[in-house]
Amino acid sequence: MIVVLRPDATKKQIDHIIKRVKELGLKPHVSRGVERTIIGLIGPEDVLRVTPLEVFPGVEKVMPVLKEYKLVSREFQKEDTVVKIDGGIKIGGNRIIVMAGPCAVEKKDLLLEIGKKVKEAGATVLRAGAFKPRTSPYSFQGLGEKGLKYLHEVGKRLGMATITEVMDASQIPLVAKYADILQIGARNMQNFNLLKEVGRAKKPVVLKRGMSSTIKEWLMSAEYILANGNFNVILCERGIRTFEDMTRNTLDVVAISVVKQLSHLPVIVDPSHATGKWGLVSAASKAAVAAGCDGLMVEVHTKPEEALSDGAQSLVPDNFSELMQQLRVLSKAIGRTI
Amino acid sequence: MIVVLRPDATKKQIDHIIKRVKELGLKPHVSRGVERTIIGLIGPEDVLRVTPLEVFPGVEKVMPVLKEYKLVSREFQKEDTVVKIDGGIKIGGNRIIVMAGPCAVEKKDLLLEIGKKVKEAGATVLRAGAFKPRTSPYSFQGLGEKGLKYLHEVGKRLGMATITEVMDASQIPLVAKYADILQIGARNMQNFNLLKEVGRAKKPVVLKRGMSSTIKEWLMSAEYILANGNFNVILCERGIRTFEDMTRNTLDVVAISVVKQLSHLPVIVDPSHATGKWGLVSAASKAAVAAGCDGLMVEVHTKPEEALSDGAQSLVPDNFSELMQQLRVLSKAIGRTI
Amino acid sequence: MIVVLRPDATKKQIDHIIKRVKELGLKPHVSRGVERTIIGLIGPEDVLRVTPLEVFPGVEKVMPVLKEYKLVSREFQKEDTVVKIDGGIKIGGNRIIVMAGPCAVEKKDLLLEIGKKVKEAGATVLRAGAFKPRTSPYSFQGLGEKGLKYLHEVGKRLGMATITEVMDASQIPLVAKYADILQIGARNMQNFNLLKEVGRAKKPVVLKRGMSSTIKEWLMSAEYILANGNFNVILCERGIRTFEDMTRNTLDVVAISVVKQLSHLPVIVDPSHATGKWGLVSAASKAAVAAGCDGLMVEVHTKPEEALSDGAQSLVPDNFSELMQQLRVLSKAIGRTI
Amino acid sequence: MIVVLRPDATKKQIDHIIKRVKELGLKPHVSRGVERTIIGLIGPEDVLRVTPLEVFPGVEKVMPVLKEYKLVSREFQKEDTVVKIDGGIKIGGNRIIVMAGPCAVEKKDLLLEIGKKVKEAGATVLRAGAFKPRTSPYSFQGLGEKGLKYLHEVGKRLGMATITEVMDASQIPLVAKYADILQIGARNMQNFNLLKEVGRAKKPVVLKRGMSSTIKEWLMSAEYILANGNFNVILCERGIRTFEDMTRNTLDVVAISVVKQLSHLPVIVDPSHATGKWGLVSAASKAAVAAGCDGLMVEVHTKPEEALSDGAQSLVPDNFSELMQQLRVLSKAIGRTI
Repeated sequence: MIVVLRPDATKKQIDHIIKRVKELGLKPHVSRGVERTIIGLIGPEDVLRVTPLEVFPGVEKVMPVLKEYKLVSREFQKEDTVVKIDGGIKIGGNRIIVMAGPCAVEKKDLLLEIGKKVKEAGATVLRAGAFKPRTSPYSFQGLGEKGLKYLHEVGKRLGMATITEVMDASQIPLVAKYADILQIGARNMQNFNLLKEVGRAKKPVVLKRGMSSTIKEWLMSAEYILANGNFNVILCERGIRTFEDMTRNTLDVVAISVVKQLSHLPVIVDPSHATGKWGLVSAASKAAVAAGCDGLMVEVHTKPEEALSDGAQSLVPDNFSELMQQLRVLSKAIGRTI
Repeated sequence: MIVVLRPDATKKQIDHIIKRVKELGLKPHVSRGVERTIIGLIGPEDVLRVTPLEVFPGVEKVMPVLKEYKLVSREFQKEDTVVKIDGGIKIGGNRIIVMAGPCAVEKKDLLLEIGKKVKEAGATVLRAGAFKPRTSPYSFQGLGEKGLKYLHEVGKRLGMATITEVMDASQIPLVAKYADILQIGARNMQNFNLLKEVGRAKKPVVLKRGMSSTIKEWLMSAEYILANGNFNVILCERGIRTFEDMTRNTLDVVAISVVKQLSHLPVIVDPSHATGKWGLVSAASKAAVAAGCDGLMVEVHTKPEEALSDGAQSLVPDNFSELMQQLRVLSKAIGRTI
Repeated sequence: MIVVLRPDATKKQIDHIIKRVKELGLKPHVSRGVERTIIGLIGPEDVLRVTPLEVFPGVEKVMPVLKEYKLVSREFQKEDTVVKIDGGIKIGGNRIIVMAGPCAVEKKDLLLEIGKKVKEAGATVLRAGAFKPRTSPYSFQGLGEKGLKYLHEVGKRLGMATITEVMDASQIPLVAKYADILQIGARNMQNFNLLKEVGRAKKPVVLKRGMSSTIKEWLMSAEYILANGNFNVILCERGIRTFEDMTRNTLDVVAISVVKQLSHLPVIVDPSHATGKWGLVSAASKAAVAAGCDGLMVEVHTKPEEALSDGAQSLVPDNFSELMQQLRVLSKAIGRTI
Repeated sequence: MIVVLRPDATKKQIDHIIKRVKELGLKPHVSRGVERTIIGLIGPEDVLRVTPLEVFPGVEKVMPVLKEYKLVSREFQKEDTVVKIDGGIKIGGNRIIVMAGPCAVEKKDLLLEIGKKVKEAGATVLRAGAFKPRTSPYSFQGLGEKGLKYLHEVGKRLGMATITEVMDASQIPLVAKYADILQIGARNMQNFNLLKEVGRAKKPVVLKRGMSSTIKEWLMSAEYILANGNFNVILCERGIRTFEDMTRNTLDVVAISVVKQLSHLPVIVDPSHATGKWGLVSAASKAAVAAGCDGLMVEVHTKPEEALSDGAQSLVPDNFSELMQQLRVLSKAIGRTI
């Protein structure tokens, strides 16, 4: 931690700061420059998190030197984390994993029909929501437990792993009973109770980036899960909110690479929510694969016109199949499989 | 709802759309322009929320005509909502209500000391968090139930109403037992389970705007609470996330006026989180009052240097008292009291 | 400047950095912490602006200690700058200056009619554009020199000072001939040629904040003008671009206070562009005055229905007059006049 | 254009609107719904651009049906535009064109050295700035005409086309004399005088997206150039400003695909400015190529430590060469060459 003093800081003020940080067990290191005096603090920065040095008289600003996340960092673990799902699927290895399916579970038959199609095309994880976070209280809110059962049955029948969203800490036991991977949605990225409980649940977790969360905040949320004992975390970039309104969100494709440098956790991308338009899903998916993602989560629906949720961003099976074909060639070109 | 067709839309595509919207009980109204054909749909737009017309072949874009929120709208209720709190406090009337106190409950004595000071200065509601949403799992997470008890006792002793944050639906009964007003934090603005349960709880609720939520989304979240039976909702603007980094958030002061035009609900402002710096709280508070807010929620701490949370944005009692003095003059100038 | 080294930085890398900064005339100050080594650099930071230390092997990040702007800073000049306009108007003093008029000069008679109305209501500076920056090449682009002449004549006749936009360095002599204050629009805030030339022109300048410019960048642009010899700079906050779409821009009302702390320059606010809707101009103006601005620039038009530019955000004279009445009371309450 | 009326709009107000739009030569089409009356306007929307219908009494909102740009649209020209540069380079065809070189021209020898390296690696256009837009007036501002001459000589000697930035309309004749492609920087995307003059100059133009410009505004700026007679426009995505601060900007990779759907103009990407860090340039370049861009503009410097501008985001020749190798494989996988 570096404390930059105001040009008019008095000796008394400086002494007060030095006294205080010494009490906290830190070693202050004063350096008088031409225009500013600065104090470097040596020792564990953690104790400073609860001491707001910026309010001390004479302080102009405080600059942290260390990163706040630990367990998720590359410094803590050099090797890539590979999350293993029941059924032999590995996320974070050479093979790019594709999760596909409808936005929401609607009917069992329909889910089976879509599941078959996406499996044929190469997806290995079936996605579908039973609890749906919807902006409007009047929109379809999901089938709840019935939806979880359908997802479980269809997944089993097709030999696919399953992923579905958990919206509240109280739902974890129920969702964990039926699904292989728990998904934390963008709106819940900083629902800290949910993060803690999912940390205790030990099931693999996909943590979506909040729509206006920085990469640092995203890693801090993952840190909550790891700090509670669950290292099976997969990060999911799904677009951030910007001023651009031609797309639902702005896919931050470079974030994949930033996260890979800072953390050992696998990163997947949701091109459907990132763009909000099925006609842009293909370009977004290719960009994500080329940029080094470990997986994709794509919305596919046989009848987007009748989908109860997010039809506008769902691919039909034929388009999805064509995309998978192209991604296969692309993955090979970068030395990976899909 | 207006459906704009692509310039190359075929008759067959148009007929398909017309057939489908008729099945939904809507009356289509086709209008052929020079460059585009458009279809106006007359009837309840709600049925269209689950039918994604934008994926129908031949459609270029779909433009909603009506607002999605109903119960919170000025059209539904012309008169301003006035939320009544136990102890005779009214939020949304002529008097501007000031809520003040430390960010978090730390110790009972300290809370009492701060409470006395803010009451003397003119605050009528005591604020302090027992459950703290913190970006880092290693930061102080609040005292929990012990904190709620302290808040309740201090509020009672000083004759002040109390407000505190509820972070999870499961905490509602506990928090409702001790506090007069439930606060939903910015990170939980779209925690829909929490919104529904708070709707059923009937206690007055302060709903903070999400840090990257549009005004429309904010009103939709309030709609969740009203739709579940609780009309005692107070909206709280607390700054939005932008690219500017000199302040913690950017106070959207004009949002007060926008909301007042669209909705009958009272609006208060949190100048402490909006700015993140105590030296800017005064200017933000004055701007909010001049712009027509119904209340303020201000962080005050006797020893910001030792605050366990958000010390940098807390006023000391003397500054708070001086601010209240200035706000009294300002309120009078706009025909209100404080 | 503080250089934070990577945890794996080698002695050779550190020596290389030390050697290089010594060559630049700086005194390095190495401090070895538990997890990181940092190097503090003492001496003029300017020489480092052209040496990208972040690319040196072993460097994790570089943190500047000093502000990059000098002449515009409070440290350089403690007293508020008061810009004097011909005719005895002072911007930056106790009196809040109101500039009003139509978005664009359209006809001389109309300008005179509007000018009379705004003068009656209390405005002392007449605003109107002769060169209009328009997003579309097919929109009205302004009357050019004819518009400047009209503005000059009307201003003279009414005894009002005048302000108008200069869009290009080549227009400066022409505009300076007719107007008392040169305005640099938001889109040109980083048109550095224009800034330099305006700096040499010596006329008072209103520098609008770019729609996505940080306060720091805004001050750096002002620095260009001062560094070229012109200290008569007035900053104008006019809203920044955010995700919120109910308003044209988001008024950053707290920026007034931030700038006042960092700089000695006066700050005015444009509530018309900040909101984009005449129904919100009043609330924005009051907030700005309460927050401490030194002036306002308001669009007023007698027939907004027929305005060739920005009619939607123009007040009619009656609304403007009512607003001025309210601002008079408000200004008094904060110890100022208007 | 669709005019949505307020629920309380009177017959008199509706008649006033109808009368007015008829005077403008449009055919109004009134449609009374359950909750709102709307008026569809048939005829050329252009005449409405100067009539702000939103200020008419009784109007709630106005929704445009047509796009504002014409010449740049796919509807105007179905086939992709291919811009031809002297020396046989075509931008917008199957081959992806790579422009590379230092941020700024510093010395002739250095430019030649860098030019050789990038040519060897596969770049065909040499980039380097002679006029540099810099946030600080105290930063290196470029060599001016001397820089242009060096660029011209080195380009000629190596048989490479050249591109450099033009910052002001007055510089166009000078820059056009020395460079093959004129570049308009992000800060000048809405410098309308510059756009008009570049439109008259007829030289190929690279138009960078403004750092907070929507895709629509970007296309409108291109429309200025085409409307003034120059169809040789290449769009360049270079990242947009968001809240994320780990990267200099956020690369909007999906914008490539959006623009390709809306317009016939070629789109290239600047991965260096988009990321601001050389360690992220490779991922950004691959993502851009996979997403369908027609070219890349990359900063390369032999000694980033000594670069006078933007050293932190420059690749060294070895990294650039390795990247080109990878892009070659990637381009082949998507059926293109590089």
